[in-house]
Amino acid sequence: MPENRNISKIILPEPTLRRLPWYLAYVSLLHTNGVEYVSSTQISKELSVDASQIAKDLSFLNIKGKTRIGYEVATLERELQDFLGFKKGHNAVIIGVGSLGAALIQDSGLSRYGLNIVAGFDINPALVGSSLCEVPIYDISELETRRKQYNAEIGIVTVPVDKAQEVADIMINSGIKALWNFTPFRIRAGEGIVIQNTSIYAHLAVMYNRLNLQKQRSR
Amino acid sequence: MPENRNISKIILPEPTLRRLPWYLAYVSLLHTNGVEYVSSTQISKELSVDASQIAKDLSFLNIKGKTRIGYEVATLERELQDFLGFKKGHNAVIIGVGSLGAALIQDSGLSRYGLNIVAGFDINPALVGSSLCEVPIYDISELETRRKQYNAEIGIVTVPVDKAQEVADIMINSGIKALWNFTPFRIRAGEGIVIQNTSIYAHLAVMYNRLNLQKQRSR
Repeated sequence: MPENRNISKIILPEPTLRRLPWYLAYVSLLHTNGVEYVSSTQISKELSVDASQIAKDLSFLNIKGKTRIGYEVATLERELQDFLGFKKGHNAVIIGVGSLGAALIQDSGLSRYGLNIVAGFDINPALVGSSLCEVPIYDISELETRRKQYNAEIGIVTVPVDKAQEVADIMINSGIKALWNFTPFRIRAGEGIVIQNTSIYAHLAVMYNRLNLQKQRSR
Repeated sequence: MPENRNISKIILPEPTLRRLPWYLAYVSLLHTNGVEYVSSTQISKELSVDASQIAKDLSFLNIKGKTRIGYEVATLERELQDFLGFKKGHNAVIIGVGSLGAALIQDSGLSRYGLNIVAGFDINPALVGSSLCEVPIYDISELETRRKQYNAEIGIVTVPVDKAQEVADIMINSGIKALWNFTPFRIRAGEGIVIQNTSIYAHLAVMYNRLNLQKQRSR
């Protein structure tokens, strides 16, 4: 395996990419607790993921476990953070500083995962010109200039659902390369634009449905 | 199809359940714009989901489209909201009123999707006894009593990752039936407890990776 292997050259299966943060969370916990080594069998027991799947997932990383000892916890934690892009700062702007948008600006957890929200945009005159947790709020008309100024590639969409496509188009025209869409609207974008949908409200529907099923079963 | 068909009796495929909120978002938009009818072909074009898949998904609902006209927009919107549980109030408590927890309490969007956060819990003495957007914050020791008082079945987990399992155990012992887990930790729970994982940080990893791939391709 070449030494200069680069994350950007690896086409990673998305399920792997979704599991890696679980491993990171667990490994960070072990690190905090002073544990030095961890095996894939141990991770497997803790996270209910097949041990061979874990070994396969971790094979994408530049790390080798030792026979009978496992992975060095500190190294595995660092490699996972690096690999997942959590240590590199990614500048993002947020469009729509309503309740969810303001909430995300105030969530300091995002910066720990490599996301720096550098500016917010809204159409509400009461918000424009103010700032929230030191993040300035501008009028949407300033998006293109400000995006360049801050060199932001990521745009977070937290506008009302009927404005999602319009705002997405504006963002893409201004040079945004990835949209993190929190609305339940399915944004359309041309080739080369990354769209990450995170509809927390859709998760609510799934949870309500399962809860109803469980009630039904326990009767 | 029986008239008294009940959501709790239907075992719905999860992919369907995740798509239904997309249809709802689009249909609500049409409703706002005064559109009266919509066909699955039209929804298909707008959301890039196969038209036959849409017809299949909507067949779980108590609604019939008319040949050549399609579904009545207002009825479809109402049926989707009902079916997804967004119109019924679900009481929830939130454990961990840090940046993300406080953010969720302040997100008025959740109540529009049927989730009422009735109380918050924390161990921070500076928070206990205060309230946020009229939601009282209690000490975690009061969880069992307060949960019963508010008749909350859903517990939202927004504590640091190393406290996730401990807090989940406390919640389940207090009578919580569903955990909405925002930590990247994989919570374990016994049979009959619903766990909905919403790790927004894991979505960041997926987005960073795709963004890197796109940059690679465009070189």
